[in-house]
Amino acid sequence: MKARVTIMLKDGVLDPQGEAIRHALGGLGHKDVAGVRQGKLIELDLTATDPEAARAEVARMCEGLLANTVIEKYSIEIA
Amino acid sequence: MKARVTIMLKDGVLDPQGEAIRHALGGLGHKDVAGVRQGKLIELDLTATDPEAARAEVARMCEGLLANTVIEKYSIEIA
Repeated sequence: MKARVTIMLKDGVLDPQGEAIRHALGGLGHKDVAGVRQGKLIELDLTATDPEAARAEVARMCEGLLANTVIEKYSIEIA
Repeated sequence: MKARVTIMLKDGVLDPQGEAIRHALGGLGHKDVAGVRQGKLIELDLTATDPEAARAEVARMCEGLLANTVIEKYSIEIA
């Protein structure tokens, strides 16, 4: 079973990396970019077979290691 | 218009960062993780209004700056 975790900075948290990308894109002539936010994507191969149990386990991974929940939000897709 | 770019290492390219995450998860007791791949997620706010033109523009951004197409693959969602 595969899980895909998306981790982004919470709204309102400054994203200097995204801002650097926006600036670089502007320098390359992409002037119609109003904003950029950068996040992380983590794909997990799980041996679990129950989707609900897998989602709960991945949520524990996010809370414990993958995301900094003070400033980041995460979402989980199970496939 | 929003665009979401997903950038992952190509299959077959070693992902030491993903492997480090897998190892750390194992150390925290998450033993049922068979593999981890880490990628990037970039959300773009575009002033463009035509979805097809926006997709083509974002593809140019990926080829020119956002992705290293020698070792990375990207996918684009327009919303």
